[in-house]
Amino acid sequence: MRRPEIILFGDSITAQSFRSGGWGSRLADAYSRKADVVVRGYGGYNTRWALFLLHHIFPLGSSSTSPVATTIFFGANDAALRGRTSDRQHVPVEEYKDNIRKIVEHLKKCSPTMLIVLVTPPPIDEAGRQSYAESIYGEKAMKKPERTNEITGIYAQHCVALAEELGLRCVNLWSKMQETDDWQKKYLSDGLHLTPQGNGVVYEEVSRVFREAWLAPDEMPLDFPHHSQIDDKNPSKAFEDRCL
Amino acid sequence: MRRPEIILFGDSITAQSFRSGGWGSRLADAYSRKADVVVRGYGGYNTRWALFLLHHIFPLGSSSTSPVATTIFFGANDAALRGRTSDRQHVPVEEYKDNIRKIVEHLKKCSPTMLIVLVTPPPIDEAGRQSYAESIYGEKAMKKPERTNEITGIYAQHCVALAEELGLRCVNLWSKMQETDDWQKKYLSDGLHLTPQGNGVVYEEVSRVFREAWLAPDEMPLDFPHHSQIDDKNPSKAFEDRCL
Repeated sequence: MRRPEIILFGDSITAQSFRSGGWGSRLADAYSRKADVVVRGYGGYNTRWALFLLHHIFPLGSSSTSPVATTIFFGANDAALRGRTSDRQHVPVEEYKDNIRKIVEHLKKCSPTMLIVLVTPPPIDEAGRQSYAESIYGEKAMKKPERTNEITGIYAQHCVALAEELGLRCVNLWSKMQETDDWQKKYLSDGLHLTPQGNGVVYEEVSRVFREAWLAPDEMPLDFPHHSQIDDKNPSKAFEDRCL
Repeated sequence: MRRPEIILFGDSITAQSFRSGGWGSRLADAYSRKADVVVRGYGGYNTRWALFLLHHIFPLGSSSTSPVATTIFFGANDAALRGRTSDRQHVPVEEYKDNIRKIVEHLKKCSPTMLIVLVTPPPIDEAGRQSYAESIYGEKAMKKPERTNEITGIYAQHCVALAEELGLRCVNLWSKMQETDDWQKKYLSDGLHLTPQGNGVVYEEVSRVFREAWLAPDEMPLDFPHHSQIDDKNPSKAFEDRCL
């Protein structure tokens, strides 16, 4: 028996979402016995490379097995700057937007009713990126940032604009995180990836959007009877009522 | 595209395994991009009630969609004592053993190559159970334990004996946890359920058994190319090599 599936499609920030305190495992726990949360996170991937995965992860022609909801969470790698150390991951912002559009169009072909939530990249703490690079490469570390908060913000704006254009829900993580003092250290572990608290923000925002779209765990049925509903003298009754 | 699936089938200790530091989410993280870890945990269930779920969770006749591995982790509720507050969950130990055997036989019908790992219930800290009951029910709390460590140990022994009889791998959690000083507080949060450290023990033991059975994440292929394998001038090549 398959439960409804929620797919998390994205880069390393999605791939790492099942680490302790991660937003993916918190979602999985919240939807316990109601939906399966499936991670499709690809560290280092930009949207250009993500397109190669689309038909493998979301095959056409089987809407019964399509997820009920998908988060699309790219952009942190697309926004790497040209001519800097992460140059090869760079994707121009217009192409980034167009690639997200292609992903959305494909998902809507898989299932027109699928809830699609776009998530912008988080903000960048350039000082944090620099310290991180020095901790790994020492003197050889880049002197100029490979990502800036300003440029990443432009990708976030394009993501928000696309969501509006397509009538999709969107989590503007770039803006949301910067509303909090000390977001640089509080939410980011290396200037880019998320601390457990940063994961908490993603979890809260994604859950809120899911709930607004009627995908609230409290309103979804349990897959099988709650144990308190089972009559120990006649257990089969509860299962006849709920499983057949 | 479906990845190999690892199903965790059990009671509340399995259902809670995606909480922060939980053994399920740690497994999911370890098998990232290699296998999907799917939780089928049912709080309060004993093996008698679990039998009603078998054909729903593990349908016959589709071995291609059967999991590559399943953990069967029941017994904590079966071992509740007769005539005490959790009486309705009690299942006699011989029936418990027979029910686990039925689950195994069904899974082997689904897929003869499926790796099946039996997990015994963890030990019981009777004082911890008592404090927990008092914290919830105050003066009305049970005066006599609804579970004892000794009786739960008999269920664990039967589980281990069945694994030997059937040639299955087994994690004897009941014994393993008691090898450590202060296991009562270190591993159990309410005398029965697991602390993050207790979850760590389950994670380490289950991973070890999976690895011994050749299901080691290090030896399994990534689902798609690692980002460093993608030539940014000719990205399709990496995907042709790996995805077609």
